[in-house]
Amino acid sequence: MSKTELNQDKLFLEKFYVRENLTETSLEECQAALKLLVQGVKDLDKKAMEAVQTRLDSLTKPLGSLGVLEEIAKRLGGIQRNPWPEIEKKAVLVMAGDHGVVAEGVSAFPQEVTPQMFYNFLNGGAGINVLSRHAKAEVICTDVGMAFPLDPPELMRHRVMNGTHNMAQGPAMSRQEALQSLLTGAKIARQAIDSGFRVLATGEVGIGNTTPSAAIISFYTGLPAQDVTGRGTGLDDAALIHKQEVITRSIQVNQPNPQDGVDVLSKIGGLEIGALAGAILEAAHSQVPIVLDGVISTAAALIATSICPAARFYLIPSHSSVEIGHVAALKQLELKPIMHLDFRLGEGTGAAIAFHLLDASIHILKEMATFESAGVSNK
Amino acid sequence: MSKTELNQDKLFLEKFYVRENLTETSLEECQAALKLLVQGVKDLDKKAMEAVQTRLDSLTKPLGSLGVLEEIAKRLGGIQRNPWPEIEKKAVLVMAGDHGVVAEGVSAFPQEVTPQMFYNFLNGGAGINVLSRHAKAEVICTDVGMAFPLDPPELMRHRVMNGTHNMAQGPAMSRQEALQSLLTGAKIARQAIDSGFRVLATGEVGIGNTTPSAAIISFYTGLPAQDVTGRGTGLDDAALIHKQEVITRSIQVNQPNPQDGVDVLSKIGGLEIGALAGAILEAAHSQVPIVLDGVISTAAALIATSICPAARFYLIPSHSSVEIGHVAALKQLELKPIMHLDFRLGEGTGAAIAFHLLDASIHILKEMATFESAGVSNK
Repeated sequence: MSKTELNQDKLFLEKFYVRENLTETSLEECQAALKLLVQGVKDLDKKAMEAVQTRLDSLTKPLGSLGVLEEIAKRLGGIQRNPWPEIEKKAVLVMAGDHGVVAEGVSAFPQEVTPQMFYNFLNGGAGINVLSRHAKAEVICTDVGMAFPLDPPELMRHRVMNGTHNMAQGPAMSRQEALQSLLTGAKIARQAIDSGFRVLATGEVGIGNTTPSAAIISFYTGLPAQDVTGRGTGLDDAALIHKQEVITRSIQVNQPNPQDGVDVLSKIGGLEIGALAGAILEAAHSQVPIVLDGVISTAAALIATSICPAARFYLIPSHSSVEIGHVAALKQLELKPIMHLDFRLGEGTGAAIAFHLLDASIHILKEMATFESAGVSNK
Repeated sequence: MSKTELNQDKLFLEKFYVRENLTETSLEECQAALKLLVQGVKDLDKKAMEAVQTRLDSLTKPLGSLGVLEEIAKRLGGIQRNPWPEIEKKAVLVMAGDHGVVAEGVSAFPQEVTPQMFYNFLNGGAGINVLSRHAKAEVICTDVGMAFPLDPPELMRHRVMNGTHNMAQGPAMSRQEALQSLLTGAKIARQAIDSGFRVLATGEVGIGNTTPSAAIISFYTGLPAQDVTGRGTGLDDAALIHKQEVITRSIQVNQPNPQDGVDVLSKIGGLEIGALAGAILEAAHSQVPIVLDGVISTAAALIATSICPAARFYLIPSHSSVEIGHVAALKQLELKPIMHLDFRLGEGTGAAIAFHLLDASIHILKEMATFESAGVSNK
């Protein structure tokens, strides 16, 4: 590709991203934008990673003895193409969406809770707000597709549709809607990056969204629904079995194409899942690390890496939740969870906690004494 | 026990703790002080724990969905006997000691590194300094028994002896020295608590100290040396097998009494291990939570809980390290590690990282909106 072509592509994406709402955008334009997004994702910078490792090996500790912190520092260096990564400004992208499949009775909470929690986020009272403040991160909330109207209507400006259709009876979304959810997430991520955020994390809210997430995980891992489906916000045994049956049925009814991540998203996904997958693709495109939260975020990562395998390098795992599909999905992504917090809240809460570990890794890299400076004998 | 007797006991301990150095203290006085320390350890406050749980259940999240953070908040409430625990001032107690057993060739680094790292701690350049600064915690370093002289000599004021004897040939310490190490650790913990620290953590440095730690863990868990012995700061296969053999021999030669934690400590322990066990007992005595670091800290916890089983309630686990004995020891203590950081550095580094999780748990308890205040429908 020539430099002129590259610049033209960049311009196309820029012009695409400034649109207020993507619902008017055609299928063809969406396909073209996604293609450009994916084409721009590169491998990590091996030289920066080696430079980070050399520095880590000179510090007053046995080689490799800070394990995961060293891995994170190296990964951050490779992503940012910088041996001294900068991660001060951090944001959790919380995407909100509703799910037609709740008509099947797969959630313990009523659908009204999605907008109620969305307002709670905006007012700073939810778990993700508390944990983000503590980690000095911003929370950026976007309604990608809740079912109920919001007040003021301005809050709905990024909404693609009023919740998905019931995937147990047919596709959750059209292909165009799925692409619009992806590109809305990418746009939100790009706006955050343009505002100076150097690390992103994935968060979400959406009553019923562990159901499409488990469906996506079951589909990509090949594991039966009962091996990847958890109790969500609190189902009893009978309701759990019913949920697993709904998931199996949704996959059977829709027959998604495993070679086509957008098809999988449209048939058994969700609007917030699509937006998170898009945010991951944009983070990878812009060489920004993105920390994965729980089972919904990880399902979004499966969609994103199915569309663009190299996006995997830009993902940083955080915790493994109580949701059993989470561990299976992380394994599929070749990611190892760092914390076992027994969370089942979502919102980005586990990722927000992981921000402390990212900070710790950079402090180690930049502040520890070397064997030479401290006068400590090396092995 | 009458109130007068209790006050007299308290006075005895207070007078004991103001002594500059405990090396002049007799076996009988040490035994009496330890007895008083242990007698003062109470169960957790169930009422405070229930109050914490009631508050947590009113917050805008599914019941129990913040897993480990909720457990920690409850534990902190029970320890401090306060439904609104205060944990702002935190300190890592780093105890330094040397080990006669290095004569058997069980460590990859020379013994000179212990004081070199001690100076590195004092200068703020080590991993534990960096991670403690990041967690807003102080590092309090104490030489309980390094082998080499320190400059200025004032730094040695708490030293019990110049390193232990070679436990592969006989007891590492006398009973009196073991008691002195315990009570020195208790004294340092008390001084920190009297200075306003509300949470402590265990840290250490001591070339060779994974060897006595693995011996203690093997002894208490009943597992053979090869199942609990790791590579320390970096042994090869042959050296690892040799280390395991030295551990097995040390237990056989010394025949510690499983009913007597001080006997175990004196025969196959270490001075910094004794000091950490003493710090744990004093933390429990003073109703202060103490966060456990890695394999050495966990071996110290086995000694402490062997002397006083109720001390277990005051322990908060942090990570599980690469050292295979660590997981076995945590299991013995009925503690579940929260993080899997692949650390093998010690110093208190894993515990310092866990401080962020303690802070997060208290932020959740105090700052999250309730279902009522946020107008969110409950299940």
